[in-house]
Amino acid sequence: MADNVAKSVIENLKVVIIGLGLIGGSIARGLAAKLPDANVVAVGRNEKVLQQALSDGMISDYFTDIGEACNNADLIVIAVPSLTVKNILKELQPVLGSNTVVTDAASVKGEIIESVTQVFGSVPENFVPGHPIAGSEHSGYSASTANLFEYKKVILTPLKNTKESSYELVETLWELLGAEVISMTVKHHDEVLAATSHLPHLLAYALVDTLSQQGESEEIFRYAAGGFRDFTRIASSDPQMWHDIFMANGDATITVLDEYIEGLYRMRTAIKDQNSAELMSTFIRAKKSRDRFLEMFSAKRSKT
Amino acid sequence: MADNVAKSVIENLKVVIIGLGLIGGSIARGLAAKLPDANVVAVGRNEKVLQQALSDGMISDYFTDIGEACNNADLIVIAVPSLTVKNILKELQPVLGSNTVVTDAASVKGEIIESVTQVFGSVPENFVPGHPIAGSEHSGYSASTANLFEYKKVILTPLKNTKESSYELVETLWELLGAEVISMTVKHHDEVLAATSHLPHLLAYALVDTLSQQGESEEIFRYAAGGFRDFTRIASSDPQMWHDIFMANGDATITVLDEYIEGLYRMRTAIKDQNSAELMSTFIRAKKSRDRFLEMFSAKRSKT
Repeated sequence: MADNVAKSVIENLKVVIIGLGLIGGSIARGLAAKLPDANVVAVGRNEKVLQQALSDGMISDYFTDIGEACNNADLIVIAVPSLTVKNILKELQPVLGSNTVVTDAASVKGEIIESVTQVFGSVPENFVPGHPIAGSEHSGYSASTANLFEYKKVILTPLKNTKESSYELVETLWELLGAEVISMTVKHHDEVLAATSHLPHLLAYALVDTLSQQGESEEIFRYAAGGFRDFTRIASSDPQMWHDIFMANGDATITVLDEYIEGLYRMRTAIKDQNSAELMSTFIRAKKSRDRFLEMFSAKRSKT
Repeated sequence: MADNVAKSVIENLKVVIIGLGLIGGSIARGLAAKLPDANVVAVGRNEKVLQQALSDGMISDYFTDIGEACNNADLIVIAVPSLTVKNILKELQPVLGSNTVVTDAASVKGEIIESVTQVFGSVPENFVPGHPIAGSEHSGYSASTANLFEYKKVILTPLKNTKESSYELVETLWELLGAEVISMTVKHHDEVLAATSHLPHLLAYALVDTLSQQGESEEIFRYAAGGFRDFTRIASSDPQMWHDIFMANGDATITVLDEYIEGLYRMRTAIKDQNSAELMSTFIRAKKSRDRFLEMFSAKRSKT
């Protein structure tokens, strides 16, 4: 959708953002940058943050009560930690208008669908599950930026009964914020993310933890270089958020973790046996794949 | 040592760099930047690269024959891939002057000591094993830079019989290039590097390889984000170099790999059992360690 059409769609709506952390805050900032007159209302627990966002000019109003905030809302974005979503849904259920479109930003979609089903009996046709692939090892409103979603992918996982107009509204929001929107099934999303995001985080946490448990961990870290810093960057991510993700997407993560451990054992054997050919072919294959990924990754950014 | 004293020491010497790749090329560039009149001679197989370095003004002369190059040399730096060092040593042995100081830049010190012992009968007192911790996923002379070693650590692993004056000359070279020089035993070096560098590279190669073997690898990579890019950056490293490292430092790598796999199984169990407390405590501990590492890492850079 053209930017000006997207703007005219969104600027006439009341948008409610529940949770003003990295994601919610960045949505607010992005909308404020694109649409200074947009009607964007935030809900949160930390009034200091809400007050800050209001005085920053990022939102037009704020509430600590979901019912008050969501009155006459056109579009609600739930941007709270995964395990908090269910409680938010419970508060939302009695006050949700029948035409209000709801989306979320949680990293695991299967669990959200389960929570929505438990709270609403079934998944409402105006609920559009979503996941912006735009994390950071930093969290909270203070880490949010207006351009967090630019050139990023947002995956929407509509169900069979999801209304097309609801899907399109959520798609319009993300496109306005500069993201590329992709649709896939809930199951496929959770498997792909287990492989590309959840597993790497687990591996990075495990590496830092393994090394920090060694006798001379201070000294070991002292000699670590830039490769180690980049490799472990994601181990500085918010522990609560990642706890929630592994609680929610355990099965898919374990499946790909098992394949990975098998791969490690293959390399262990190759090292032990001084199997030169096996080591070379694995490293060459991996470098080729990674370089191809890099091309895809930079292509996204230079497209516009 | 003060910079001007270091300069006056090095500028009166004939320095020979064997191998003009990322490391050798960066030494040449760094010396050329600090000491435009230094007598720096390069040896290599690729005459095009040598010619390039000469016309870039990075070296004062070049040879393809080690004997010719090393005639009257004061300091020789061996900067070729690990598994090539032994062949270089064989060529060097008959021509090496008794006062010439020799150092190397290989990532695994135990193997170098073994090669030197095999070729020379014992490790000469003017041989100073060294390792600049300044890698990159890029390689070759074209990737070399004059400031590659600035604020980086260089580990020297002298033996009991290493001459103090030889150690000091090598230390002076690295300090002139902006590095911080640290001394430790060969065994300790290889263990520390297995943990902080060799293991992370293995894990990154294994991750990219595991994912690329999945049915829809193109698609999986498509949804990978910045975290994945950084985590796997080191999997774009030179396969030959890393092959050589794992061939040379297999035992130390396998020891820390086994501890790591144990750690992965602990996390697998915690995920399977939905053990909230175990996941939280591991992630919090890892984040703390990583944040502490980051402080140390940036402190190095702001010290000067």
